[in-house]
Amino acid sequence: MTPEEFRKAGHQLIDWIADYRQQVETMPVRAQVNPGDVRRQLPVQPPEDPVSIDQLLEDLNSAIVPGITQVQHPMHFGWFPSNASLASVLGDIASSGLGTLGISWESCPALTELETVVCDWLRQLTGLSEKWQGTIHDTASTACLTALMVAREQASDYSQNRGGLQAETSPLIVYSTAEAHSSITKSALLAGFGSDNLRFIDVGAETKAMSASALRFAIEQDIDNNLRPAAIIASVGSTGVTAIDPVAEIAEIANEFGIWLHVDAAMAGSAMLLPECRKLWDGVENADSICWNPHKWMGTILDCSLFYVKDPELLIRVMSTNPSYLQSTVDDEVIQYRDWGIPLGRRFRALKLWFHLRLDGPEAIRQRLRRDLENANWFADQVRNTEHWQVVAPVNLQTICIRHNPHDMQGDELDAHTLAWVNSINQSGEAFMSASQLDGRWMVRVSIGVESTTREHVEALWGLIQRAVEK
Amino acid sequence: MTPEEFRKAGHQLIDWIADYRQQVETMPVRAQVNPGDVRRQLPVQPPEDPVSIDQLLEDLNSAIVPGITQVQHPMHFGWFPSNASLASVLGDIASSGLGTLGISWESCPALTELETVVCDWLRQLTGLSEKWQGTIHDTASTACLTALMVAREQASDYSQNRGGLQAETSPLIVYSTAEAHSSITKSALLAGFGSDNLRFIDVGAETKAMSASALRFAIEQDIDNNLRPAAIIASVGSTGVTAIDPVAEIAEIANEFGIWLHVDAAMAGSAMLLPECRKLWDGVENADSICWNPHKWMGTILDCSLFYVKDPELLIRVMSTNPSYLQSTVDDEVIQYRDWGIPLGRRFRALKLWFHLRLDGPEAIRQRLRRDLENANWFADQVRNTEHWQVVAPVNLQTICIRHNPHDMQGDELDAHTLAWVNSINQSGEAFMSASQLDGRWMVRVSIGVESTTREHVEALWGLIQRAVEK
Repeated sequence: MTPEEFRKAGHQLIDWIADYRQQVETMPVRAQVNPGDVRRQLPVQPPEDPVSIDQLLEDLNSAIVPGITQVQHPMHFGWFPSNASLASVLGDIASSGLGTLGISWESCPALTELETVVCDWLRQLTGLSEKWQGTIHDTASTACLTALMVAREQASDYSQNRGGLQAETSPLIVYSTAEAHSSITKSALLAGFGSDNLRFIDVGAETKAMSASALRFAIEQDIDNNLRPAAIIASVGSTGVTAIDPVAEIAEIANEFGIWLHVDAAMAGSAMLLPECRKLWDGVENADSICWNPHKWMGTILDCSLFYVKDPELLIRVMSTNPSYLQSTVDDEVIQYRDWGIPLGRRFRALKLWFHLRLDGPEAIRQRLRRDLENANWFADQVRNTEHWQVVAPVNLQTICIRHNPHDMQGDELDAHTLAWVNSINQSGEAFMSASQLDGRWMVRVSIGVESTTREHVEALWGLIQRAVEK
Repeated sequence: MTPEEFRKAGHQLIDWIADYRQQVETMPVRAQVNPGDVRRQLPVQPPEDPVSIDQLLEDLNSAIVPGITQVQHPMHFGWFPSNASLASVLGDIASSGLGTLGISWESCPALTELETVVCDWLRQLTGLSEKWQGTIHDTASTACLTALMVAREQASDYSQNRGGLQAETSPLIVYSTAEAHSSITKSALLAGFGSDNLRFIDVGAETKAMSASALRFAIEQDIDNNLRPAAIIASVGSTGVTAIDPVAEIAEIANEFGIWLHVDAAMAGSAMLLPECRKLWDGVENADSICWNPHKWMGTILDCSLFYVKDPELLIRVMSTNPSYLQSTVDDEVIQYRDWGIPLGRRFRALKLWFHLRLDGPEAIRQRLRRDLENANWFADQVRNTEHWQVVAPVNLQTICIRHNPHDMQGDELDAHTLAWVNSINQSGEAFMSASQLDGRWMVRVSIGVESTTREHVEALWGLIQRAVEK
């Protein structure tokens, strides 16, 4: 395809996207397809003859769009806000158009240096000190795995340069809670620690936040048993109920025992753009690594997960490679982000942060976040003030966990009722929420914060929910 | 930003991209900036007031573009062809515009099902049997790490469910060669094997391909020493000299001893679109996993790395998570790609393969690959037939490794001469090649295969090189 052909097709595609984003609100939130429906519309065999962009856009409309759960829909209250702000989309488009290659500073100096700059802008915007240096990962899962690998190497005095974890005689231990994101357990297992060496520390009955005293007890017990505490993962905004682990107390323990502390603020990190929310991660300055996702509530299109460390040399010591074909004459003066994470090659992801922050401006983002917090409070108040309804977990940010219980239902009966009303709404396509378990029983998470979600939509949701339980 | 504002800015951006891609050939290949030059043009502090798209495009021109090494430039012969074909760029733009969320089948059924379809199209197009099922990773580094983690778990009878690698008494061993990509060593260390347990098998003096007999000897010796062979990584197209390990012989050994065989064809996989090249990975059907990157020579914009396995259940057993908030009623009937790799969330990367294959068509891609192979042969012939010039490694595909030696230079003198002429060209911005080491001495890799590189450009390069050594 020539640049002129691209120009023509690109203009068509931009119009298609603009129309699409204007029409999102008219579409069902959850895709109304069954397993295999999309696949059956696509040829089993690869194409031979090229098609026109017109044909492809038609196919996009007929085969793909009906198979999309519309997370940009203002009535999407599921999982988490996965905002793809159009300013950041433009940055992503610029990245695609440039077709750069990020494998070393030399392969695209601007990619490296803009990444340094925008990560530092977000450091400042979230109130972190100059001690922190950031990089962009695809997801918080990868960032957590990276943190655990570095913690593993630090705690084992860099066993990778000897026999690896295989030669360690005294097991390394990882601490987190059962409320932490599923990727924490996955990362610990992938990093080779083994499930026997992963401790789920007790949480508060109401708060679901890690008990610092239970953490201390577990660490001391492990040390007494000749085990080696290696890493603690604290959640600032857990996935289920947005639980906030007490970072300050945990950091004190981590520092006392020389344990790596990784703060997983994947969802809640966006809130740190608001000074009034920063108390939620009090003590974060004493952690060793932090991850949060602009690609959630803040709205820089996925994939954009920030990973901050105080000492990149520790990352480099574990992650670096320096093959001859990647060397250049300026290697001593530049950052090689390949040595800060797992993949060698990277896209020019800094552009979407640059576009987002510059075209929208931080103040507009902050105002939107505050709007969402107000909407969440309003919604929580409605639930609390309505008979048979209950807010079942503290509302720390913009997620409200609710249950409806009209006649003292228990156990399975309550579960069946909860799943029935939430599934009826989800299946209708009118709105979408996530069912999740709390203390082994189903509840419904209402996660507010899609860019286009106004008070009106939250009110509409509350109406929908009340009608659903009456059916 | 509203969809209408996006429409306007998007049209400007498309024109900007089309102009940019038309002008690439007029720009220096290697960015003519020094460390810190880009950064110094950008404010240290984050923006407060929003700017217009016009202002941002100006800044893109003035601050970013000069800091880009132009890998889409027809005179780029460095590293590997990192083609961002404009058809695939359109697919990437569609992905950005849609703003989908890939965390489960339910979160975007089309994302999951199109990924299944396009991976299968490429399976067919590269002549792999129906035994293989594919998924898209960001890079071959991540795919290799995934393969090694699965191999580790299989060889240790899923030690992750007990004490991890830490409880294993008989070390697991990984086999590769010193010619393999740097990510192989990195992956083995990150997966916890430890450098003591990584074997670099001897390679042929000329071919740089793994010696199957040396592999067998190493495995037998390790078994005799009560060690446990766990994984072999065979390179089909090594990074330095495009060495082709003998996959058929290696697979026979792997199967005999029950060792996981991962085939890293990151660069050479694109060649498998050509039936006449498939002899290069003869025996691949007997491997356990394969990775190759459409984002290299084939030209589907980065990041797009294909990872095929015969038995996804093995991936799922090691990688799966199934938290309550991600469960849906159809979980038994669908693929959850989050359980096939490290990250939970994924972009709609299948779209860029879909656009690329449908808008360009496979035949056009095949023709381009054949053109590049012919250009490589032509270039190799020029070098071979010119006094004082030498092709220093077999030309298995489109990379030619060369040295110039006008008067029987040796050692450091030859190294200095080689680096002098290649750096003089690279610094001029007229063309770019990678210096790389072979048997501890510098040579120059001429990697042909940028989409816009014609015979004329290869001829121009040969002229440049001959003039450079005369200076």
